[in-house]
Parts: sequence; structure tokens; C-alpha cells
Amino acid sequence: MSELSLSLFSTPEMDEVFSLARQVQYMARFEWALASALEAHRIAPKGTAAAVEPFADGTHIDLDSLVVEARGAGNLAIPFVRQFTNAAREANAEAARFVHYGTTSQDVLDTALVLQMRDALSILERDLDRLEQALILLTRAHQSTILAGRTWLQQGPPVTVGLKTAGWLAAIRRHRRRVQSAGSRAIVLQFGGAVGTLSALRDKGIAVAHTLAQRLDLMEPELPWHTHRDNLAEVAAALGLLVGTLGKMAQDVALLMQSEVAEAREPAGEGRGGSSTMPHKRNPVASAFILAAARRVPALVATMLSAMVQEHERALSGWQAEWETLPEIFKLAASALSRACELAEGIEFDADRMQANLDATRGLILSEAVSTHLAASLGRTEAHELLERASRRAVESKGSLREVLLEMEELQGVLNGPELDRLLDLKNYLGSTQAFIRRVLGED
Amino acid sequence: MSELSLSLFSTPEMDEVFSLARQVQYMARFEWALASALEAHRIAPKGTAAAVEPFADGTHIDLDSLVVEARGAGNLAIPFVRQFTNAAREANAEAARFVHYGTTSQDVLDTALVLQMRDALSILERDLDRLEQALILLTRAHQSTILAGRTWLQQGPPVTVGLKTAGWLAAIRRHRRRVQSAGSRAIVLQFGGAVGTLSALRDKGIAVAHTLAQRLDLMEPELPWHTHRDNLAEVAAALGLLVGTLGKMAQDVALLMQSEVAEAREPAGEGRGGSSTMPHKRNPVASAFILAAARRVPALVATMLSAMVQEHERALSGWQAEWETLPEIFKLAASALSRACELAEGIEFDADRMQANLDATRGLILSEAVSTHLAASLGRTEAHELLERASRRAVESKGSLREVLLEMEELQGVLNGPELDRLLDLKNYLGSTQAFIRRVLGED
Amino acid sequence: MSELSLSLFSTPEMDEVFSLARQVQYMARFEWALASALEAHRIAPKGTAAAVEPFADGTHIDLDSLVVEARGAGNLAIPFVRQFTNAAREANAEAARFVHYGTTSQDVLDTALVLQMRDALSILERDLDRLEQALILLTRAHQSTILAGRTWLQQGPPVTVGLKTAGWLAAIRRHRRRVQSAGSRAIVLQFGGAVGTLSALRDKGIAVAHTLAQRLDLMEPELPWHTHRDNLAEVAAALGLLVGTLGKMAQDVALLMQSEVAEAREPAGEGRGGSSTMPHKRNPVASAFILAAARRVPALVATMLSAMVQEHERALSGWQAEWETLPEIFKLAASALSRACELAEGIEFDADRMQANLDATRGLILSEAVSTHLAASLGRTEAHELLERASRRAVESKGSLREVLLEMEELQGVLNGPELDRLLDLKNYLGSTQAFIRRVLGED
Amino acid sequence: MSELSLSLFSTPEMDEVFSLARQVQYMARFEWALASALEAHRIAPKGTAAAVEPFADGTHIDLDSLVVEARGAGNLAIPFVRQFTNAAREANAEAARFVHYGTTSQDVLDTALVLQMRDALSILERDLDRLEQALILLTRAHQSTILAGRTWLQQGPPVTVGLKTAGWLAAIRRHRRRVQSAGSRAIVLQFGGAVGTLSALRDKGIAVAHTLAQRLDLMEPELPWHTHRDNLAEVAAALGLLVGTLGKMAQDVALLMQSEVAEAREPAGEGRGGSSTMPHKRNPVASAFILAAARRVPALVATMLSAMVQEHERALSGWQAEWETLPEIFKLAASALSRACELAEGIEFDADRMQANLDATRGLILSEAVSTHLAASLGRTEAHELLERASRRAVESKGSLREVLLEMEELQGVLNGPELDRLLDLKNYLGSTQAFIRRVLGED
Repeated sequence: MSELSLSLFSTPEMDEVFSLARQVQYMARFEWALASALEAHRIAPKGTAAAVEPFADGTHIDLDSLVVEARGAGNLAIPFVRQFTNAAREANAEAARFVHYGTTSQDVLDTALVLQMRDALSILERDLDRLEQALILLTRAHQSTILAGRTWLQQGPPVTVGLKTAGWLAAIRRHRRRVQSAGSRAIVLQFGGAVGTLSALRDKGIAVAHTLAQRLDLMEPELPWHTHRDNLAEVAAALGLLVGTLGKMAQDVALLMQSEVAEAREPAGEGRGGSSTMPHKRNPVASAFILAAARRVPALVATMLSAMVQEHERALSGWQAEWETLPEIFKLAASALSRACELAEGIEFDADRMQANLDATRGLILSEAVSTHLAASLGRTEAHELLERASRRAVESKGSLREVLLEMEELQGVLNGPELDRLLDLKNYLGSTQAFIRRVLGED
Repeated sequence: MSELSLSLFSTPEMDEVFSLARQVQYMARFEWALASALEAHRIAPKGTAAAVEPFADGTHIDLDSLVVEARGAGNLAIPFVRQFTNAAREANAEAARFVHYGTTSQDVLDTALVLQMRDALSILERDLDRLEQALILLTRAHQSTILAGRTWLQQGPPVTVGLKTAGWLAAIRRHRRRVQSAGSRAIVLQFGGAVGTLSALRDKGIAVAHTLAQRLDLMEPELPWHTHRDNLAEVAAALGLLVGTLGKMAQDVALLMQSEVAEAREPAGEGRGGSSTMPHKRNPVASAFILAAARRVPALVATMLSAMVQEHERALSGWQAEWETLPEIFKLAASALSRACELAEGIEFDADRMQANLDATRGLILSEAVSTHLAASLGRTEAHELLERASRRAVESKGSLREVLLEMEELQGVLNGPELDRLLDLKNYLGSTQAFIRRVLGED
Repeated sequence: MSELSLSLFSTPEMDEVFSLARQVQYMARFEWALASALEAHRIAPKGTAAAVEPFADGTHIDLDSLVVEARGAGNLAIPFVRQFTNAAREANAEAARFVHYGTTSQDVLDTALVLQMRDALSILERDLDRLEQALILLTRAHQSTILAGRTWLQQGPPVTVGLKTAGWLAAIRRHRRRVQSAGSRAIVLQFGGAVGTLSALRDKGIAVAHTLAQRLDLMEPELPWHTHRDNLAEVAAALGLLVGTLGKMAQDVALLMQSEVAEAREPAGEGRGGSSTMPHKRNPVASAFILAAARRVPALVATMLSAMVQEHERALSGWQAEWETLPEIFKLAASALSRACELAEGIEFDADRMQANLDATRGLILSEAVSTHLAASLGRTEAHELLERASRRAVESKGSLREVLLEMEELQGVLNGPELDRLLDLKNYLGSTQAFIRRVLGED
Repeated sequence: MSELSLSLFSTPEMDEVFSLARQVQYMARFEWALASALEAHRIAPKGTAAAVEPFADGTHIDLDSLVVEARGAGNLAIPFVRQFTNAAREANAEAARFVHYGTTSQDVLDTALVLQMRDALSILERDLDRLEQALILLTRAHQSTILAGRTWLQQGPPVTVGLKTAGWLAAIRRHRRRVQSAGSRAIVLQFGGAVGTLSALRDKGIAVAHTLAQRLDLMEPELPWHTHRDNLAEVAAALGLLVGTLGKMAQDVALLMQSEVAEAREPAGEGRGGSSTMPHKRNPVASAFILAAARRVPALVATMLSAMVQEHERALSGWQAEWETLPEIFKLAASALSRACELAEGIEFDADRMQANLDATRGLILSEAVSTHLAASLGRTEAHELLERASRRAVESKGSLREVLLEMEELQGVLNGPELDRLLDLKNYLGSTQAFIRRVLGED
């Protein structure tokens, strides 16, 4: 089927986490844990858990028929429970009576999802660490590599590569905290029965829930959340935020890689970024995929938010709308994050080209430096207008800002050559750049 | 992998249309048609097309390795062309030289997509016809089946089931026209080479394009559309509009199926709509899936619109953002449409229950009838306020509107019993219902 | 202009927070605070702050011309600074030289936005408290008011109104934490100058930033965030999550208010929810507006996420895309929250009608109770199938489940009348309802 | 209030079309036209229309109180009708009885919206014409101005400015057709009364509707469309498609305007695109605003699609969700289109700089030309790989592709100097460029 898609906008391990096999494995584990909890609280007879345990990894389930039946049944759990119970019955008819006892389809499906998300979040957190480390190294290595700052895609005063990567780094750290915080709320048991009252378990619901959570190593929520999906949607939003920052990084890189800018290059690699017709090119493949993810994820987050409007005790369609959407967000995030790690670990910067690009604008990007200096004597507005005139003249004459300024009558006696040279030295116009970088690196 | 998803929110035939196998088949057909066109215009030697023809169905391509290589290469066409050329070379080295000659990855991928969309649209148009027919039958059958009109989810004056289904029907016809119109623009060849100039074909580009289009039975666009995606996005939007109407239909059905309303039932079927814990229920499964599609598609359409902002001659990430999104929209639309067909063909309406529900509001829903009648003598505002008082009194006393009105002093001499009975007869308060239905059925 | 819109999907106080007047007021306060900080660090001469202070409330700015000029200039700050400086120059030419010194348009606009958001968040937090209190009261008052649980819009086993409102309450508390947490990250100074280096302030940037933050009572970020918008987008997402839950509440209420259900009514009020043609109706006006907000906010959050992809040091279009979007999210959230408070404080529940609706399904909703009970002796699947048969029979015969079950041969000797009565008593089938409610109320 | 927003992302004339004043004017016109139709069909007495006519322009309505009352009432029409009727009553009590007779709030509000959309579409169609003309002129003027084609933001084979603008032009023409086609479906009367049956008009509904439509110069729909919003959503989608193409144009321009590319400049103008701190800059202000619109509109279209799921005869919240969203889409589209007109009319291209940028890549962008030429003798793959080697060598040695190729042993005897010069002449590698342009200009 769409194996390509899976592979192009996911990672193999995230594909596995959200595979049908893994889902069914966790559904089976839920049923086993429930049997065990029922037995612990003497609802099911001794031996129930042991009888069910051989099926607790879900490998006996026929996945193909599951899907076919799910289409009519409305969800995957209904045919799953049938298969699971049948298997258990053959082994132990008595125990089979307590399979899925007191619970409902959504309990199984949601808890399996939570277990999948736990796996998925641990992959993402690992890669967030990896990215953070790579960005720390980049920031240190390029703390003083000067390039043009750019606003509206126009050159402005200089910054350093390290300042740019420090900005990425600080954002990634915020995302790690957000992802952890969202995960800590979302990774909880779902167990409420048909309408969230655990009514079939009479007065033992809370106790069974407690044991069930322990068996699955999950925290318990205050109450079942069948139609309160804010924790899931929060995870989606946290990933959406993360992918937004990854997109910003990739956009910066792709712009720096343009033929006419050529200040950065994505890491090379066998068969990477070649063009079928233009053999000389190194395409920003990683950046393109990250940016494609950043174009797609926001709308998927919107779907998760829309899907929160769910009816009464169990929803009509909001729940179903989540089924493919949330895994898709995880896959896109994992893919973008993994590509961002490769990018950060292998990106090459070209300091010479950065200098050449700065030189090409003939000092104009330091007009602010001169303007600010002159503001003290001429006033901000007058200084600004004077530099506007000078800049225009430099552009028209294809001369340097330095030459033009030295010739301007208005500046005779106000600004001399050595002062101007100092003002126009890029290194002298980095302001708090190093201080900001040190703050992010925790060196202050 | 996610076979479940595929199956739950798609149809088997739409899964096939957007399978990797079908995509590769059409990519191979493109390469064959190109070889044939190159030969026709004497760019490639005689026999080129014949030599390539054995590979024109794409079945010799190793799909698994394609995907792995595509991840690094940036798209599927690069490894595909390599495999295709290698196969051709073994058969005929001379011919192999002209595989993919003068074209670019995106030409192959976009044209394959167009061919897939042609298949997909013909499925959708068939089902739109089927749905239209079912709705015509429903409308005829229930032209005069009275039920409460509902506004803000409150009962209002009566309508008929046929008026409701006529509204669905008229919208479905508009969608068929939109889908056809969007399809007619989008089903065109993509052939421009690296930057849309067909430069490698020198002065023969236009002629080769013409023959290539003929071979594939496609229309030609004015010029290549590598970064002009409005036609694709229009198809997406047309499907989004269609799914919106299907969602409206499903919403109506699901609301009518509520336990407390019980005026409609989805068609029954083996294993359909059962509940794992509540054996008596017939769930609105088809409606739920249609509504889930209607929750998801709008955001995917937004992604297609966002993805239109593509750079220069070939895009950085907008193109990639379409790859999974457009097929997903087709699958969701196909699934929703197919479910809507089943629904329209098998839905059961309960006229008795409709009458009972109308009776339960004790005539209040006809307050407008009385109010409008009295407006002629008392003025609109006064009549409205009088009926507000009467309605409130009927609600409080749990009596009927008729009784209350007959007792009101203000109406003595203004309205007598027989007049009131006529006003309160539902059949007399259907206004233009039949005229509207006849218009939609083309009987006027 | 669009005064209606403002009023219909906002609140008067939120309109004021995001008015142009408030924005300009805070821009002026920024310029004053900057003057004060520059003076403190001896960049500007003594008296600068005092000279600028008369203009610190922004009331002297001509708002109309601002907007006209902003269209060409690209943002509001450019004409604002011109007006502000002109005014200051007339008062004190020396001080005017230091207006906007070392900073950039985006510093002023972003910091003003942060100050507006601080006001906005305090309004929302106040209303979250108010809503929480109302929900606590509702939950206590209706802890034991029984109504049908509903799944897929079908009646299921009973729950209580208090359980439903406890679910709302628990979610609202999570949202309060999220909003606070997002706010704590986002309410920080923006101050970086043209490219985020504070270069015009040479080595005094950090010190000036520190004082500036103090003057405005804001925290400082690690480094300027001109093109790192994750904190803003997180606020948007947190509000999106909140509105999702409010939509869920409103959906529940609107469904309960349907003519055929009639278990709840929105609070009455002068001119509220009347219909121009159907005088008897009480429309779910508050619910409708909340639901409309819940339909609109997700897409706006998606825009904020998409807008995160911002170029280099200052962005081309992502920043501009936020300008109207974020205020719109705040207004919709404020409006929905305010309506939800009114709703929670005034909603009327009709316990009699709840009981009548439960009775109307003739015991079927307790089939699970019987099924679960029988599962212990017959096995889950057999019990389930038996109840399916019984339920079907009850539906067909229009008899009660009790009667049908007592007649079934399969149950002779398995289940007697008194046992069945106990099973079919709604009060006996609430499971952990009270325990869950006590947990949420903190009474456990 | 948000005057800034209105002005920054709209145009003055579109603000006016969607002002409250215009809306109320059209609501009043509806009421007058209805009075006239009622009189024509002898439902209202002679003189009714004449009596109501003085109020037909809506100027007597107090807009401020409208909005305040609308908040409680749920929509604007309820307080509007009250005010309108009161005014009419003072003039002619008899006539006032027939104000709003037989109709409902949504009829008035939807028809007023349709009349506003008619105005709005005529503005957009005028500007589409204007843009088309400007693009025709640009295309003619720059038919042969050579610049680098760019793929993945990397230089590729050459194109001409005229080919780029011809691509824009062809898309704009498709959009004009789409906008017209959507408009022709959407600009129809809304008139159905409470539940779409015109029941209050008994058997005269169709006739009154016909006359009403004539009075307003509107087409009639098959039946009322209170909850079938596909025509409105189609207009929204058509505008979304248009803005997508405008965004693509703006993106191209902004990229060409980068300091390091400098091949295009937006038109200059008083106070346009200046920077408050960087006096030398000319910012892509028009492009930025167009791109900001292209970031925002897709999500708003998604909201319109989501809002299509409307309940029964009149909706709970989908209708309300449209109220601000559709006008916002119109405003953003109008603003983007107007900015695109200015851009297309005043953009300056720098052919010298285009040539210089092409020279800077030392012939590498023509590697495809050589590769394709060699493919005929060496085979596509071999030729491709040879050029990859040559390109890499040229990059490393900072030499030209020409030099490197002439030195390669593999090419001795295969390719001589003059052949190579011909291959590397940009003018010789434009393929079908002129043919495509002529097609779009209709010169073929």
C-alpha cells in the first residue's frame, strides 16, 4: 500500500510504534492486565491471569481479518476481543469468561494508544537530546563565525552562526520541556467501561483500575477521559510546536544553501540530494522534508483540536477522527526531528562565503551602526534620513558606504575616517551576541 | 503497517488506486510513452519504444528498495528511473539511453498522479451517480412523510423527509458538477523538464509533449505546472466541499437515530454497529465514519492550499507536502461517499415515531402558523408576543397550545375552534414543500 | 466597521485589551521605559525619561493616520515612532534623540503584544476560576441526579449529572494549569534591535535590557525571540485546547436541550434565545456561540503553528500572519469562556425528564448490567449474545427487557425476578460514579 | 477597535462592503423587497411597499444598540427587525404588520450576505482583470529576459522572466474562471421561512420568492439553502485557491529581491518598505503582506468547510462560524490581490544582475545541456555521472565547467570546443520557452 509514504515522512522505528502489530500487542497486554486485576480482586477465579497470559503479546491475532471486520463493527476492538476470547476459550473456558469483563472497546483502544505514545515519546525525547547536543557543539564551534543578519530576506547588521544556532537550541530546550509536560499528563490509564462509571464492576471499579494501572505501569487519571481528549490534543499541539521550530531551522538552512548565498551545505551522503537532471546540484533534501512536515502538521493539530468536541459519555465521530491523525503527527514529528539531527550533526558552514556576501553589500548593512552613532549628535530621525540618502547614493554609484559618507558635506567635522572605520568594522558591531550565546550555553 | 487505517477510512478500490504498485505502473507507462514520443519525433532511434514496452507496466520494479532509496534521494522517481533504465539496458542498451530523456522526476511523478486521479475521479463519479439515484428514490418515497423541522436542535414547523433528502440531492448534484469541472482542469499532462522549458529537447519539446499526451490519452496544459498547483488544490477543495455535504447528511441521520428521537435507523448488517458492552444498540456506524471524514478533510484541504506557495520553477517543500495529503483526501472522500451510498440505499425511517415526536410538543411547533395568521389582524409583533405568552403557558401547564389559545381572552372573537384546528393541522402547514421537491426532482 | 463581529464573538473587555488604543498605549510605555533604561545606563542624558514621560500613555498619538501610514510602511511601529518622536522633540529636542534608540519596530510591537497578553490572560484566569467554582457547585448539587449515559448518541447505562460536570471540571482545571504555564513562558520582554544583537547599544545591551524589563515588570528571555515564536504559539494552542473543552460542554448542553430530550435548559434572560418566528422556543444561544468558537479556533491555532516557520533574524511574513490571528483567538476564547460561565451558573436540569427518558427505553440500557452479571456464569460472549436476542425481542414487542428476560427459557433457573429487579435498578448500576466525583471534588 | 487590522489586511473598499452599515442596508432592502412582493401577491395590502420604502436603505437603524442586543438574541436580525418594524409602524401601522412576514432571520442575513458578496466579487473580478493586464504587459516586455531557473532554491537551466510571469498569468486566468463560476452558483436568493418550507405563505411561497428575487435582481435557488452551505464554501475555496497563487508570485518576488540575488525590486513609493533601523533597505512589503494572507487564508477555508456540517433545517453553530470567517477571507483576498496588482504594475527586474548571477555558477547550470547532449552517445546514466564528476571538479577547483570538460579524458574525441560553446550558450538552451509564452499570450 502506501509504504512509500510511511517511509518518506516517518522513521522505521516510529512506523513500528504505530504499526497494527504493536497496537494489537498492547491491546492484548491490556486484556491480560485486566484479567490479572480481576483475579487480584476476586472477581475472576484464581488462574485467570495465568490462563490468558500466553495471549498477552497479541501474536495469535489474525491482523488481516481484524481490519475487514472492524470496518463494519466500527472499531478494531470488537473483532479483536472476539478473536482474543476465542483463543482463550480453547485454552481455558472458565478464564475466557472474564476476558474484557467490565470494560469497553474504547478502554482497550485508548490504553493501547497510551502505551504506543509512551514508546513514541521516548524516541522523541532521545532525539531531542541528540539534537540538543549537536546544537551545543555547533554553537560553540561557530560562536564567532560572522555572517549577515537578515530581516525581510535583506541583509542587515552582522550576527554570528553561533547566535543563530543558540536561538535554535534555546527553542529546542523549551520544546523538550513541553513534550515532557504534555506526556506526563497524557500517559495515563483509560478504564471506565461503557459510560465511564465502571458500573459492571459494582463497588470494585476503583480498586481494579488501580491494580490494572500498576500492571501496565501507568498512572491513573482522576476519572475516565473517553470524551475529554485535552491531554491527547495537548501532545499533538506540543509536537506541532516542535515541528514549527524544526521548520524554522530548515528554512534558515535552505535559504543559506541557495546558489547565490552558498553559506551552508547539508551533510553529503550516498544518493542524497542528487538531481536526476542536474548532476552538479546538492539539494537541501533534509530541509525540504522538514519543511514539508512543517506545512502538514499544523492542519493535523487543528483536526485534533476540532475532534475535542465529543458528545456525552462516548463520542460519535471525534474519537474516530483522532485514530489516524495522532499517529500521523507522531510520524511527521519523528521524521522531521530525525532529519534535523542529521542536519545539525553534519551541516557545513562556509565562513569565506559569508564574508564575501557581507562585502558584496559595500558596507550598507552597517548603516545602522553609523546612524545610531550619529543619532547621539544629530538626533535619531535626522541621522536615519542622512543614512538613507547615503545608502541610496552608494547603491546608485555602486560605491561603498564609506566613500559616500566621507564625501558628504553634512558630516564634515562630525565624523572622521578612523571613526568611520571603527564603526564599519563588523566585529565591532556584534553588540550582545556573545553574551546571549553564553547565556544559552549556561556559561554565564 | 497501517493497514487498518487504510481500510477504515478508505475503500479497497481507492486503496488500490493510490497504492505504490499503481503509482509505479503509471510511472513506467509514462517512461514508455515518452520513449514512443521520442521515437516518433526521431530523437530516439526506431525500436526504442518497442524495446521499452516490456517494462511499461512497472511490474519489474522492486518496490521495497525504491522506498528505502527514495528517502535519501528526495523522491521516488530517482531510484525508479535507475531501476527502469537498468532493466531496459539489459534488454536493449541503445534504447536505454533514451529512458527519461529530456524529462525530470516531477514530470513522471505528477503525470502518474494525474493518471491515478483519473481512476480515482471515475470511482467517485460512479458513486456520486449511485448516491444521486438512491436519493431520488428516497425523496420520491418520502415526499409526504411528515416530521418536525428542527432549528437550533429545537422542533419547529413540520417538513417532510422528502424535503430533507431533496436538499441533500440538490447539493450532491452541485458537487458532481464541481468534481467534473475540477477534474477536467486537473487531468492534464505534466511535461516540462528540469525547469519547465523542455530545453533538453531543443525545438522539439512542444511536438514531443503533444505525442506524449496522446499516448497517455491526456489533455495538454498551456505550459508546465510544476509550481502552479491550483488545479490539484481545486480537486482537493471540490472533494472537501463534497465531504462537507456528506457530513451534513450523516449528522442529520445520527441525530434522527438518537434513542430519544428514533426516527431513523441505519441499514442493518452482519456485525454492523453492535456494541461490545451494550447488546441492544444499533450504532450510527456509517454516519460516524462519514462525520469523522468531515472532521478531517477540511484541514487536509488547508494543507493543499498552503502547499500552493511553491518556489520558482520547482519547489522546495510545497510539492512534498502534497504527496500523502491528496491521496488521503481521495481516500476519505471515497470512504465517506461509499458509506453515504449504503446509508441512502438502506436507511429506514419511522413515520409513526415522527408523528409521536410531533405530538409530544403539544402543538407548540405550529405556534408560527397561528402567529402568522394572527399577524394579519394583530400585527406581526403583537401576534408574536401573544403566541410567546400562550406557548409559555402551555409549557407550564403541560397542556396543548390549542387549549391555551381557546382560553385566551385576547382571542375571543378573533379565532374560533374550527379555524384553529385548521391552523394546527400539520398537513396544512407545509407551504411550498411539495413545490420545492418537485423542482429538485425535475417534475415541474 | 465590523463592530458586530467584535461584539458577537468577543467580550467588551477583551475587545478593549486588543484595541488599537491599548496597543499604542503599551508601545508608548515601551518607549518611555527604554528612555528610562538608556538614561539609567548613561547612554541618554539625565532628564530623558522625564521628558518623554508625558507621552508614555500614548494618548497623543493620532490613531487614524497611524493605520494609513502603516499600510505602506509595513508595520504600525514605523509611523508610531515618527509621531512619538515628533511629539517628544517639541517638548525636548535633546531627549527626542533617544526615542527608539537601539531598538527596532518588532521590539516595540512584540513587547506591546506581551503586555496586552498579560492583561488578556489575567481576564481568562479570572474566568477560569469563576467557571471552576460554578462547576464545583453544579457537581455537588447534582452528584446523584441520574440520567442516561450516552454513547454514539444512544442511551447506555446511567450516569449522574454530577459525573458529567465533574468531567468538565477536571478538564477546566487542567486547562488553567496549561494556560498559566504557557503564559509564564510567553510573558517576557522582546528587545534585540535590528537583528537580535542589540548591536547599537554596544556592550551595554544586556544591562539596558535588564532595566527595561524591570520598568515594564516583565521577565527577560534568554535571548531575543524575533523569529522564535514557540511561546506565542503555545499560548494559542493552550487557548485552543481550552476552547475544545468548552465546545464539548456546550455540545453536551445543546444535545440535552433538544425538544425530544429536554433534560437541560440554558439560563433564561431578557431577549435571549428567542426565535423571530417560533415564539415558544428557548434556543441554546450560549452553546451555539461556544460551539461556533470551537469550530473556528482550531484553524486559527494552525495558522499560528504555520506562522512559526520564520526566516533568519526577522521574518518575511510569518510575523505578520500572527498580528490578527492571535488577538482573534483570545477574543473567541474569552467569549466562549464567558458564555460558559453564564451557562454553568444558570443551567437548569430537569431530573423528572431524565427519569422519563430512561424509562422510555424500557430497561434496555441496563442490558449491560444483566449481561455482565450473567457473564460470570455463562461467559462474556454467550451472555452478550443472549442479551442481544432479548433486547431485539423487547424492541420488536415494545415490551420491557424485564418481561422478555423472565420469559426466556435459557434463563430459567439462572436468574429469578428479585435478582433481576436488583440488576435493573438504575441506582444499583452507577459503579464508581460517586468515587470518581469525590476524587474530583477532592473529598477523598 | 481593530482599525489597524482592517486596514492592514484588507482594502478600504472591501472594508466598506463588509461593514455593518452595508449589511444593514441590504437587510433593509430585503425587507422592503419582501413587502413589495407580498403586496404584489395580495398578501399585504396596497401601499405596503411604498410605506416601507423610506426605510429601505437602513440608515435609520441604530447600529450600536443592534450589536448589544444581538449578543443575547443570537443574531443581528432579531433586533434589526424590531427596530425596522418600529420605524415602519410609526409611519404606517398597517404596513408594519407585514414587515418580515413569512420569513426568518436567516433569510434576511443570508440574502444580505449574498448582496454583499455580489459587490465583493465585482471588486475582485475588476482586480483580476487589472492583474491579468499587468501580467500580459510584463510577459511581453520580458519574454526574452534570461535568468536562472531554480529548483529546490538551486540554480538550474535558464528560463526567461516572461516564462515565469506567463505561468502566473495562466493561473490567474484559471482563477478568474473559478471565481466567476463559484459566484454564479452562490449569488442566489435565500428565502425559506423558519424551516425552509415558506409555510407561512401557504401556497404562495414560490410566487413571492420569485418576485422577491426579481426585486433584488437575484437568481432563485432550487430550494432554500439554510443548512446547505456548499455554494458559500465554494466561494471561500475559490478565493483560497486564488490567494495560493498570489502567494506563489509573492514568494518568487521576495526570493528574487534578496540582497544576494537582487534580480527584482518591488515598486518604490513614499514611505514604503523602509526600515526604522536600516535606512538602506527596500523591503518586500507587498510580497510580505501577500504571503501573510497566503498563510492565513487556508485555515479560514478549512473553517468554512468544517462549518458545512449543519444540523437539520437550521443549524446550531455552523452558520455562526461563517459570520466573521467569510468576510475575513474576502478581505484578505482583496488585500492580497490589490497588492499583487501594484506589484505586477511596478516591479523592476534587473537583467544585468540576472546575467551576473548566472555567470557566478560558472556554467554549472548548463550541465544538463551537456549531459543531455552526451546521453545520445554515452547513455543517460553514464552522461549524468560524467557531468556529476565534472561539476564536482569545477566546484572544487573554482574553475568553469567549460574548462573542466575540455580537460576530461573521457570526452576527447566526443566533444570539441565549438560544440561545447554552443551547448553552454544560455540562449541556446531555452527549449520551448518562447512557444509556451506565445501559447499563454494567445499568439499561437
